[in-house]
Amino acid sequence: MEQHLQEILAGIPAPDSAAMDAALRRQASLAKPPHSLGSLEDISVKMAGMTGQIASPVDRRRLLVFAADNGIADKGVSSCPKSVTLMQTLNLSRGLTGAAVLARHFHSELEVIDVGVDADIREPGVLDRKIARGTRNFATEPAMTRDDALRAILTGIEAADRAKADGVQIIGVGEMGIGNTTTSAAVLSALLGLRACETVSRGAGLTDGALEKKARLIDGALQALDPDAGDPVDVLAKVGGFDLAAMCGAFIGAARLRMPAVIDGFISAVAALCAFRLNPLCAAYMIPSHASVEKGYGLAMAAMSMQPMLNLNMRLGEGSGCPIAFEIISAAQRVILEMATFNEAGIDDEYLSEIRMNRRFQGEA
Amino acid sequence: MEQHLQEILAGIPAPDSAAMDAALRRQASLAKPPHSLGSLEDISVKMAGMTGQIASPVDRRRLLVFAADNGIADKGVSSCPKSVTLMQTLNLSRGLTGAAVLARHFHSELEVIDVGVDADIREPGVLDRKIARGTRNFATEPAMTRDDALRAILTGIEAADRAKADGVQIIGVGEMGIGNTTTSAAVLSALLGLRACETVSRGAGLTDGALEKKARLIDGALQALDPDAGDPVDVLAKVGGFDLAAMCGAFIGAARLRMPAVIDGFISAVAALCAFRLNPLCAAYMIPSHASVEKGYGLAMAAMSMQPMLNLNMRLGEGSGCPIAFEIISAAQRVILEMATFNEAGIDDEYLSEIRMNRRFQGEA
Repeated sequence: MEQHLQEILAGIPAPDSAAMDAALRRQASLAKPPHSLGSLEDISVKMAGMTGQIASPVDRRRLLVFAADNGIADKGVSSCPKSVTLMQTLNLSRGLTGAAVLARHFHSELEVIDVGVDADIREPGVLDRKIARGTRNFATEPAMTRDDALRAILTGIEAADRAKADGVQIIGVGEMGIGNTTTSAAVLSALLGLRACETVSRGAGLTDGALEKKARLIDGALQALDPDAGDPVDVLAKVGGFDLAAMCGAFIGAARLRMPAVIDGFISAVAALCAFRLNPLCAAYMIPSHASVEKGYGLAMAAMSMQPMLNLNMRLGEGSGCPIAFEIISAAQRVILEMATFNEAGIDDEYLSEIRMNRRFQGEA
Repeated sequence: MEQHLQEILAGIPAPDSAAMDAALRRQASLAKPPHSLGSLEDISVKMAGMTGQIASPVDRRRLLVFAADNGIADKGVSSCPKSVTLMQTLNLSRGLTGAAVLARHFHSELEVIDVGVDADIREPGVLDRKIARGTRNFATEPAMTRDDALRAILTGIEAADRAKADGVQIIGVGEMGIGNTTTSAAVLSALLGLRACETVSRGAGLTDGALEKKARLIDGALQALDPDAGDPVDVLAKVGGFDLAAMCGAFIGAARLRMPAVIDGFISAVAALCAFRLNPLCAAYMIPSHASVEKGYGLAMAAMSMQPMLNLNMRLGEGSGCPIAFEIISAAQRVILEMATFNEAGIDDEYLSEIRMNRRFQGEA
């Protein structure tokens, strides 16, 4: 598996710079102040780099939700019982959770993949790719073996492959797993060399005491297990989770296939960062969605020089930000295709040359 | 007209607090960490206050774009020729501009209303409500008479009435008018008592010199014309524009009809602030969309204690942020209706009571 992953990582293509240049030229020809559509323009250029086309449809959308339990949840760091992972995994597959409703609203398919829920799930809407019934507790031992981490990553890559084979044009990467803000903070601390107090958050209602305990557990585990910051697979194996590892794989798989992959909140951003650290080219195929209120989210974004487009103060997880982003990405594709160029708009050449010198046509004026 | 406007302002209803409470209770009953859907929850509660319903459809959407020329543009403060107002007004009505494409993508109608373009427009897609062919130059005299300001405001109110009569459920308020970042900065400075250097921005390519000139002109006009900060109609008449005044009217008209009105960028936010200053209840019927890069935008938002949901670095104007917001508002309505409650989700009572105490279930965990 180790070698298989290395081959996949080595095969990730660079973005298509000729297509990006063509998209930039097209943007410059549109009748608007330079860069006045801001991120919509940036997204269209980035999409061109992924797909090789000036604009590509993103009508077939799929939100991938990887579900798993985390051994660390047994230590009471998490603020709700482990059984919620199972319950919400089932509710997701039945279309009843927040992310499921948002996926439906924004015309996105939803694939729920069990990579490690601590229960025998027999539900037609949940794909069985269980590595094990939850990870071990990283407060006392590594969360999983290196082989299991590789297995989980390859499971995520397979999910991207399946999406592509089904004709999906864009994926979102989400999760369901009680305790996974703790694993994410641990992975983030390990990758960035930060103390846990800088990467953990209070969530919905963690008390001061519980927050300190969460940070202390992470710092202790990082000291005891000593994950190698230069080896994200080692970090994921020692203090990560099956969900995080599979999500990392989904980003890698999307990049290999030149398929855009949308980042959800904190956990998704940490998984994206793992993929980025395995091969920085992965970032060229990622689009962030919303700014999670979990403070580690901003650290992960900054480490990849990304900025989210949505500011909704959400912290639900489940990939809930991705469907909203799908629609905005779709709109960005449409603008570049359907807006008039300066020529079509009847804006004369003298004026056009001034615009190009960037001295006129102030936006919103 | 003065009295007619006063009667309309006096008739703006308070938001329906019982419906807001019911929406809050419904949000609390949904199987998710408290407030984990962030702004989507806030939007649904605010919408309940407007409509009196826990959730209301926003399928019929209309973007209103008020077009007008501004006399101040003759002074070269604006960075593109006045003729662009006419050209882009026509292109908007033909579906060729950025906002027109976004409106189409997000299933929004588009109504283009000429309230003061300096040309005789004969175009089926442009509604003729011209007050005059552009305002006067406020650097030397008031931009318009008080009567014309009132006439423009009532024109905006009429546009909201027309939308309601047509069965529209939500409006967006946009503009097209060269020179209107200058008028907006002047109005904002007058309302907030700020020097122009705090409210003007560089736009796409204004040089240092041009920016200073823009600020100097505004400060000079405010000193010479001395608009009454306590009388937004006076401010709009002296240093505003027909577009700004009509947009202010659209926000007032929407509030009177309990119809949600979405704020676009800087100019739209300043028009919203004028409506807010005429009657603070107007704000209960406004939803901001995207954070404009124009710095005055943040000042106007702060003055109304609002925060935008989108962070797209846009500064196109034309109401371009509104259609995107329509779809997110629609999604917020759907989530509150279709998500499972704790009971439906099978989350037991003991757990539920803990959640309600806000001590557990951490979001993204």
